[in-house]
Amino acid sequence: MNEANQICGAERRVVALCGGVGGAKLAFGLQKVLGSKLHVVINMADDFEHLGLHVSPDLDTLLYTLGELNDRQRGWGRAGESWNFMEALGQIGGETWFALGDRDLALHVERTRRLANGESLTQIAADVAKHFGIAAHLWPVTDDPIRTIVITPEEELAFQRYFVARRCEPAVRAIRFDCAEKARLAKGVEDVLQPEGLRMIVICPSNPFLSIDPLLAVPGLREALRAAGAPVVAVSPLIAGQAVKGPTRKIMDELGIQATTATIAAHYQGLIDGLIVDAGDLPDGIGLDISVQAVPTLMTDDESKTRLAQDVLAFGDRLARKADEGR
Amino acid sequence: MNEANQICGAERRVVALCGGVGGAKLAFGLQKVLGSKLHVVINMADDFEHLGLHVSPDLDTLLYTLGELNDRQRGWGRAGESWNFMEALGQIGGETWFALGDRDLALHVERTRRLANGESLTQIAADVAKHFGIAAHLWPVTDDPIRTIVITPEEELAFQRYFVARRCEPAVRAIRFDCAEKARLAKGVEDVLQPEGLRMIVICPSNPFLSIDPLLAVPGLREALRAAGAPVVAVSPLIAGQAVKGPTRKIMDELGIQATTATIAAHYQGLIDGLIVDAGDLPDGIGLDISVQAVPTLMTDDESKTRLAQDVLAFGDRLARKADEGR
Repeated sequence: MNEANQICGAERRVVALCGGVGGAKLAFGLQKVLGSKLHVVINMADDFEHLGLHVSPDLDTLLYTLGELNDRQRGWGRAGESWNFMEALGQIGGETWFALGDRDLALHVERTRRLANGESLTQIAADVAKHFGIAAHLWPVTDDPIRTIVITPEEELAFQRYFVARRCEPAVRAIRFDCAEKARLAKGVEDVLQPEGLRMIVICPSNPFLSIDPLLAVPGLREALRAAGAPVVAVSPLIAGQAVKGPTRKIMDELGIQATTATIAAHYQGLIDGLIVDAGDLPDGIGLDISVQAVPTLMTDDESKTRLAQDVLAFGDRLARKADEGR
Repeated sequence: MNEANQICGAERRVVALCGGVGGAKLAFGLQKVLGSKLHVVINMADDFEHLGLHVSPDLDTLLYTLGELNDRQRGWGRAGESWNFMEALGQIGGETWFALGDRDLALHVERTRRLANGESLTQIAADVAKHFGIAAHLWPVTDDPIRTIVITPEEELAFQRYFVARRCEPAVRAIRFDCAEKARLAKGVEDVLQPEGLRMIVICPSNPFLSIDPLLAVPGLREALRAAGAPVVAVSPLIAGQAVKGPTRKIMDELGIQATTATIAAHYQGLIDGLIVDAGDLPDGIGLDISVQAVPTLMTDDESKTRLAQDVLAFGDRLARKADEGR
């Protein structure tokens, strides 16, 4: 029964909602297990125009990670990268606060050219993914501009100014997603969230406030997730109350939100059917009507990424069976 | 008298008209002798939009050559260049027929950004020259678009398509400078060609048809050269009927022009007062009312570049004295 279900499940789509580096690790594991059955819906609100080029940090992190071109030591960007462009740019007085590697630059230049030529981010992402030999399907959540603005006590900062130039140092009072209300859910995202053939939806362990919220800010995505008729499973980005990387914990403190399994569950309330937390983080009771499963969530190598992906899929399949039995 | 004239001359401006690599060698020698008294007026008709970037090949050759950043072995581009951008661009299916080095790219990206921001090519060139520590002044002949089109038996080719993609292989039937009639001489060029304080004008040994003609196609430049009241000295790009580099000889053959000192002189007729030819190329009589001086014109190292520069300056000064005496 269990095995039959898994075989059946393996033929259906899994849709993962994903931000940058942390989420991409799970996407990598999911791709190892699912191959072309994995569809990743990507946050585009970190995108910005830099040096006249359209830079899509989260999309590119996924392209490099799923294409196995990423630098695992540095944790971002491409492996075997060189920095001669940046050095020469500094020499002529150009802006050097945002590091663009020589290889990475090809993606920004080519994307900018193709966007100016009338192609969509969706088309360009699919084409680059094909060139990188990526099995999974990558779906920018929207082809329209949407931009994260971080509101600090002193000023409003465009996301990369906050994240890279200021290294997440200013306190976060609030986060806003400019142009979100006008952004249209990309056609590809609508399609892959259709109930037919959909196994489950996974919310990757990305920053809920900076990576997942801007996805959910695109009108229609929440509704599409609810209407999809498949279990929605989130993976908590916290381990023992800390983020593995990035400012999730710091932002929660600044926003006055306790960094616990319960608050992560509360953040996704009404959206998720289950929450995966780290093995040590299983609460006695989180007071919410969702299932919680504790498994090791720290992803340090291919094996731990694949194992977490398998745990997430098994958990989602169990939730689906429970829902079937409940009907 | 001679020495006094030279000292006096050294305080005045020299304006050099210049195309790419060959001309830049003489400009390098002239800068060694003249420092900030050298003003170089640069062909901009090789410029083109590539990958969404504004590329200015002749201007950049001068920036790298006069900034001593050029690759002397390869003969073009920057020393210590790397090509990781191109490799990554090829990997995603981008256009790779025009090689842009990682360091070189900084100039194209930054120039494109600044142009979009409303700055002129003149402003950007001056600013980059300052960052490169260049003593000479670089003046794009115009800030307006002007584009060389090479007409072959089969088709019309944008210059870089002819020069780089097709490696000058198609026969040249004619050459046209699109938008030349609407281009305005840059203000800086007008200023440096004012008679006050002008020592002489040098036409560098660039390709007369592809590098100097598009300069002269900008309305007002010919008139400004004639009105400048200073000797105009051209350096022939031919040595024993051959070009040192590039398609000058091939194009002359295709256009049905004999590759001789006399035809070069004829090409510049009405514009120049004197012609420098290679030591072996002094004709018995060229049948034209200009002075001809034969000196070694092959520039292989710093010494030969500087020596040719000194020979050109001495020749120009002699022509000036002759003109003074003739008055």
